[in-house]
Amino acid sequence: MNHEDYMKLAVDLAKTAEGHTSPNPLVGAVCVKNGQVVGIGMHIQAGMPHAEVHALVMAGIHASEADLYVTLEPCAHTGKTPPCTNAIINSGIRRVFIASTDPNPLVNGRGIRLLRAAGIEVIVNVCKEEADFINRAYFHFSKNKQPYITLKAATTLDGRLATHTGDSKWITSEQSRLDVHTLRHTHDAIVVGVNTILHDNPFLTTRLPHGGKNPIRVILDRRLRTPTSAHVIMDKAAETIIFTNESIETSHRYEEFPLVTIESIPSDVDFLCEVVKRLGQKNVMKLLIEGGSQIHSSFIDACLANEVYLYMAPKLIGNGPSLFMDNSRSLISESVYLNIIDVKNFDNDIRIHALFSDGGEQ
Amino acid sequence: MNHEDYMKLAVDLAKTAEGHTSPNPLVGAVCVKNGQVVGIGMHIQAGMPHAEVHALVMAGIHASEADLYVTLEPCAHTGKTPPCTNAIINSGIRRVFIASTDPNPLVNGRGIRLLRAAGIEVIVNVCKEEADFINRAYFHFSKNKQPYITLKAATTLDGRLATHTGDSKWITSEQSRLDVHTLRHTHDAIVVGVNTILHDNPFLTTRLPHGGKNPIRVILDRRLRTPTSAHVIMDKAAETIIFTNESIETSHRYEEFPLVTIESIPSDVDFLCEVVKRLGQKNVMKLLIEGGSQIHSSFIDACLANEVYLYMAPKLIGNGPSLFMDNSRSLISESVYLNIIDVKNFDNDIRIHALFSDGGEQ
Repeated sequence: MNHEDYMKLAVDLAKTAEGHTSPNPLVGAVCVKNGQVVGIGMHIQAGMPHAEVHALVMAGIHASEADLYVTLEPCAHTGKTPPCTNAIINSGIRRVFIASTDPNPLVNGRGIRLLRAAGIEVIVNVCKEEADFINRAYFHFSKNKQPYITLKAATTLDGRLATHTGDSKWITSEQSRLDVHTLRHTHDAIVVGVNTILHDNPFLTTRLPHGGKNPIRVILDRRLRTPTSAHVIMDKAAETIIFTNESIETSHRYEEFPLVTIESIPSDVDFLCEVVKRLGQKNVMKLLIEGGSQIHSSFIDACLANEVYLYMAPKLIGNGPSLFMDNSRSLISESVYLNIIDVKNFDNDIRIHALFSDGGEQ
Repeated sequence: MNHEDYMKLAVDLAKTAEGHTSPNPLVGAVCVKNGQVVGIGMHIQAGMPHAEVHALVMAGIHASEADLYVTLEPCAHTGKTPPCTNAIINSGIRRVFIASTDPNPLVNGRGIRLLRAAGIEVIVNVCKEEADFINRAYFHFSKNKQPYITLKAATTLDGRLATHTGDSKWITSEQSRLDVHTLRHTHDAIVVGVNTILHDNPFLTTRLPHGGKNPIRVILDRRLRTPTSAHVIMDKAAETIIFTNESIETSHRYEEFPLVTIESIPSDVDFLCEVVKRLGQKNVMKLLIEGGSQIHSSFIDACLANEVYLYMAPKLIGNGPSLFMDNSRSLISESVYLNIIDVKNFDNDIRIHALFSDGGEQ
């Protein structure tokens, strides 16, 4: 195994914690001495030890004069846990290989400088692309203080979210719909419009065969029409935040539900941008949009969408609402551009995972 | 190698002639003696020797007591070439493995019976699925006397064929557009509506780096508006057939173009069904539809489409025409169903190849 192989192992370890580390990044670490892996670790959850610490503890005395491969620059500050740079220096590690540098202002090159000042050789950018990719939401959040936004939609091959009369149950297969629960599990919050609540009364919980983490439910409801009988209000399964243009005084009917918060946004403020900003303040790093046509179109139009999971069923339905209702683009060159990351099969459906080309960075 | 391996080799050999054998099927043959391949062959072109004959000629004296793997039941009649059953019997072949039986009324089990009557052991249905698949157009044509119909469309991820103002140049990448020429090469005729002629004035020829076979150009032009200055009329690159509701007397302006035929269809006859029927009579086995929204929708609505190649670019354009304009379906369960065969990448685009579930067999 060479340096890249060890780092790829570290990246794979990091990914195993997907959905659990928010607002922290995914990090994996591998400690190698004389060509043998003597320690491995990943960051499991915010507040728990960092990946490097797990790997160094496992390596024990073998850490002395060993190489450490870590997917993200080690932290140099005391947060919920002590700085990793100290642990590395004290363990006697000889060389540190780093994939991504950490844009977090508390780290941002300081980790590397401290290691070098202690006489440790530091090699950066090993498998940087892979490591940057798994933490794209963390990097976006560190930079913008706003959630990284993923759209999820299910369409027919002719691009329809529903029939012209609004029927949409079910376009995609059971296996595709199960995969959506994995998406919910790996996101901190999930957005729907009030119309979805009124028409479908969904739970918006994560229902995987072996459990899962429920995201915060976020309802965009300018006129505060969410009924108190709605599952997302009644079920106490997770926090629910309703964003509205109504004043907070009109919201007393939700007072008996301790997990429900009403956030009032003045009418003269850009509603969607304000929602995204406030969710960032609430440490929502990964936001999933399960909108209909209107909600998806608003996020795309506002250049707020970072990526999309498009579940596409091999059906044609004819007229009906589409993912993107927009009448302003006359030329193909005015399209919203994406890059396809992968295409997977789910029964007879396919799932297209694509990143918006502007990456949501306006 | 076992029986399936030899037959799969024969299927692969058959496929190498795709686009050349029409109206004949694709056929491959492998002759094996004592575990060694002693002869191989495929049918290259109508009028040329059949696959079995090539394999037997190559095997020479080794054919005696050998096994023959052939992807389609050997013919038992004299067409442009003598019956293959005779050649097999005379060569001393011991056993014949057959993948597909031939629905052609001139064969249809007679080939198998003749071989068995001559004391040859015959094993059928080896890799039948693979072999049936490569000849799906031939089987359809044998049964219905009508072309097998493939739709080709290029859309955005939100399912649009063009912007709301009609711009469509270009939705897909150069590599996707090159692949369309491979499709043209493997089809006998290509259909467009007159609007495509009027707006784009296309050549509709096969332009591959190393040449290719031009399909017959078929224009659906009820009011006979195709200008004599159109490339498809002027360029003499291939035959052009215009189907119209106008009487043949109004078509004299095309008389100076020997490769152009005008076919008049009475107004009280179903236009599309009549076009398909007449193309069948002209031995068009594989028909490619490069329509806009209206032409594609008509073929889908009439249950005449057998499969689709959908080139999908990672773009969102908003409102615009879709593959299937239909306002009659209120429920998802009323969808037109397809089965996805494969998904391929072309640069950043994907190509979805899917079969209509009813297979066009009404």
